[in-house]
Amino acid sequence: MTSPYRLYYAPDNASLIVRLALDELALPYETSLVDRATGGQTAPGYLALNPHGLIPTLVTPDGPIFETGAILLWLADTHGALAPAPSDPDRAAFLKWLFFTSNTLHASLRMLFYPAKYTGPDPAAQAALRARTKTSLTTHLARLDDLAATGAPVLGGIPLTMLDLYVCACLRWMALYPEGETAWFSLGQTPHLAHLAARIEQRNSVKRAIRAEGLGSTPFTAPSIATPPEGSPT
Amino acid sequence: MTSPYRLYYAPDNASLIVRLALDELALPYETSLVDRATGGQTAPGYLALNPHGLIPTLVTPDGPIFETGAILLWLADTHGALAPAPSDPDRAAFLKWLFFTSNTLHASLRMLFYPAKYTGPDPAAQAALRARTKTSLTTHLARLDDLAATGAPVLGGIPLTMLDLYVCACLRWMALYPEGETAWFSLGQTPHLAHLAARIEQRNSVKRAIRAEGLGSTPFTAPSIATPPEGSPT
Repeated sequence: MTSPYRLYYAPDNASLIVRLALDELALPYETSLVDRATGGQTAPGYLALNPHGLIPTLVTPDGPIFETGAILLWLADTHGALAPAPSDPDRAAFLKWLFFTSNTLHASLRMLFYPAKYTGPDPAAQAALRARTKTSLTTHLARLDDLAATGAPVLGGIPLTMLDLYVCACLRWMALYPEGETAWFSLGQTPHLAHLAARIEQRNSVKRAIRAEGLGSTPFTAPSIATPPEGSPT
Repeated sequence: MTSPYRLYYAPDNASLIVRLALDELALPYETSLVDRATGGQTAPGYLALNPHGLIPTLVTPDGPIFETGAILLWLADTHGALAPAPSDPDRAAFLKWLFFTSNTLHASLRMLFYPAKYTGPDPAAQAALRARTKTSLTTHLARLDDLAATGAPVLGGIPLTMLDLYVCACLRWMALYPEGETAWFSLGQTPHLAHLAARIEQRNSVKRAIRAEGLGSTPFTAPSIATPPEGSPT
């Protein structure tokens, strides 16, 4: 039987979060590499799935879904796991922090990694954007750590949520990228997130992702640059 | 009976979208002005509701919700209207465009309106960010227009959705702000969104918002700067 899901991915890109979610839900899926080294994300076939040319896209029986946060929420609701249900009193908190992670934490990572997309070529302007983004991210992480400290089943609680996976992947990328620009980040500054990262790292879903994308044995607590069996992280 | 909802708002801020949603759902609610002129969004009482100090926050029986997209989705699911239900095949498309509007369209407006928060004080860097943001927004609007052209009950279709309200408010702000920096924007460039704006403008929810926030008689198709009965838009 053909799997109902196909994940368009690049190693160690945002698609990693969706891969972890699919594995946590024990769903069968197929993958298609989007080869960033050859501009695969702007090839016509990919743009037909996602006009924004961003990774990931998950093809589903209800059509292709893009936007990491949308995919995570749709999977959670469709399969009834990894997020409080719509009728759950914790749903409100889950949604507000999921949107925050999508439009603020994740969006800030794009500014940190690709400042020229915002500032243009001026190196001083890029450095200024990066510096401000690092300051913002430090604040955002402190707020997420406060949230994890509460033990609510939103982030860092029991049971596991999509937000746990999303934030752990972001922690990884902040520790790794841009190379030479990561001294501002220290997982120890957010002890509850550090505890979460260590806990998630032991899950079988993460072990599968480590093999599939070459993430190394401690991808969240002490990450190293990916050495994937296929494709390019950047 | 006390209403279960209290909207913390500032006139013609993102809280306008939530006001429209509450009125479309015919839900009773109370409002509390967050006075931006005196920094009300960073007062301790407000930060206790929303640690990010951003507007809006909606206080609900399940706690305070911040993030416009989260509030809209929670209200839709809680009251069973203005969005495809979780089991609806259109849910996937609704979610991906809702997240896109939150983390890309809406986030870009913040860069356009407050470039110094990203670039720092350098006027050339601010101008460069604004110019790039205008180019990006033109692309984003074209994609939303393509979506509205399909007639799907996601944006610009029947029945009305939360995304219709969200996008119409963004159209208003692009036409108005920053003053003197709006020549790039023309509603006529996106005819399906223009049609949507004209249609939504006739709704009773919008007429109520016009009165409550001083938005003028054509707030989406030909907006003018708000003249609210209380508070300050900026």
